Amino acid sequence: MAETILILGGARSGKSRHAESLVEQAGGRLVYLATAEARDEEMRARIREHQRRRGDRWQTIEEPLDLVAALTKHAAPECAILVDCLTLWLSNLMGAGRNVDGEVANLVAALPNLDGAILFVSNEVGMGIVPENALARSFRDQAGRLNQQVAAAADRVVFVAAGLPLVLKGPPPGELDP
Amino acid sequence: MAETILILGGARSGKSRHAESLVEQAGGRLVYLATAEARDEEMRARIREHQRRRGDRWQTIEEPLDLVAALTKHAAPECAILVDCLTLWLSNLMGAGRNVDGEVANLVAALPNLDGAILFVSNEVGMGIVPENALARSFRDQAGRLNQQVAAAADRVVFVAAGLPLVLKGPPPGELDP
Amino acid sequence: MAETILILGGARSGKSRHAESLVEQAGGRLVYLATAEARDEEMRARIREHQRRRGDRWQTIEEPLDLVAALTKHAAPECAILVDCLTLWLSNLMGAGRNVDGEVANLVAALPNLDGAILFVSNEVGMGIVPENALARSFRDQAGRLNQQVAAAADRVVFVAAGLPLVLKGPPPGELDP
Repeated sequence: MAETILILGGARSGKSRHAESLVEQAGGRLVYLATAEARDEEMRARIREHQRRRGDRWQTIEEPLDLVAALTKHAAPECAILVDCLTLWLSNLMGAGRNVDGEVANLVAALPNLDGAILFVSNEVGMGIVPENALARSFRDQAGRLNQQVAAAADRVVFVAAGLPLVLKGPPPGELDP
Repeated sequence: MAETILILGGARSGKSRHAESLVEQAGGRLVYLATAEARDEEMRARIREHQRRRGDRWQTIEEPLDLVAALTKHAAPECAILVDCLTLWLSNLMGAGRNVDGEVANLVAALPNLDGAILFVSNEVGMGIVPENALARSFRDQAGRLNQQVAAAADRVVFVAAGLPLVLKGPPPGELDP
Repeated sequence: MAETILILGGARSGKSRHAESLVEQAGGRLVYLATAEARDEEMRARIREHQRRRGDRWQTIEEPLDLVAALTKHAAPECAILVDCLTLWLSNLMGAGRNVDGEVANLVAALPNLDGAILFVSNEVGMGIVPENALARSFRDQAGRLNQQVAAAADRVVFVAAGLPLVLKGPPPGELDP
């Protein structure tokens, strides 16, 4: 069964771990699609910590930009792909000068054609004070729009705070059947 | 029926759109009360985008400061007024050197006497790191107090994230009957 | 009955007031454990406002660092202790160069052995834009991890926005029976 799930939360809210626990309860193949680019030691440490936590059941793929191509290539029945995370993907798109609105539209259009379960982890970044920096304001706006569009297309949306899930859309969190 | 609703959310959370959809399901007259002042091109672009989205059913009124007077003048049975947004109103009050506590108290006191539906859109701004700037800290504190006071007075409070509503108070979102 | 409750929310979300109202409904002794250090006038004013609001039923204790020792000393059947707040405690630990992971592990390990009701107030600080400042990023990460760990150990977790509670874990808010 094809299913699209968005897991939304703040920094260090436990959203990646919640997404992992959702798919690990199910059987099938598990793919971790990392959008992070290991540009500095802080980021490398985060990536290592995530890999250590996930263990050997997961195949890891790195794709900072061409998300739709990677999803199309790997999506399959009996497979769950965890995209971690949309917010870094957006940041990479902006850094590479890509057309963000077009890329997001392509992603949303591709979702109905993908087999298996696709889980997107994304950050809520719009609940602080308006940033003084214009680029940060633009990023905040685009991140909010991206979350809205993926949420509208998703079968299930879960907000995570302090590691605890709150269902915003769809059935309560439980076992996936990819 | 008189009803006061608070729609709370982060930046680009879809809160204005959710408020619009709530009142557009109902019949009656629709008034959009904009508190934004079109001071720069970034703000003018946002205002134009909002107007384009709302279309012709709405009458638009601009009032950056004297919110109670504008509500008293326009509120009527069979009419829904959408105030977008309280956070900019607060910012305008602070910029104009008004007595914020007094203005907020006046607003809350006026609500029970207004006919029709009044919907307030407001930003959650307190879930980021403490701002280094003292003015931003003060604004954050006052915005939080304003949200609490309007929420206490409202019949319904809805939190919006990624375009999806979560009811914090009152009946679930549905058709209004202003 | 021993019970651990985490009240999570943004700045000026009404989380302290919600925690107070939870325990004031119950009988028994009330202890307010303040982790704030009154280092400047802004902080002193906040502390005075909180004390004025709570009134005479509460015994106030100040402990910026050694939280487990203070809880162990004061926890008792028929007593509710409100720790306000974990986020300032974390800030104090980092400022004093303490081993944060160790201190948090000690706190979580101590909880099952404490009598009465223990309520922790804590800030959600991870829903804004990534801070430019490395120390702020580190603080944000540690605050998120702290919230996750206390939430996992708690019997009840409540998220507060605009003064309104949303239960993330455990039974709905109601009277405590410490």
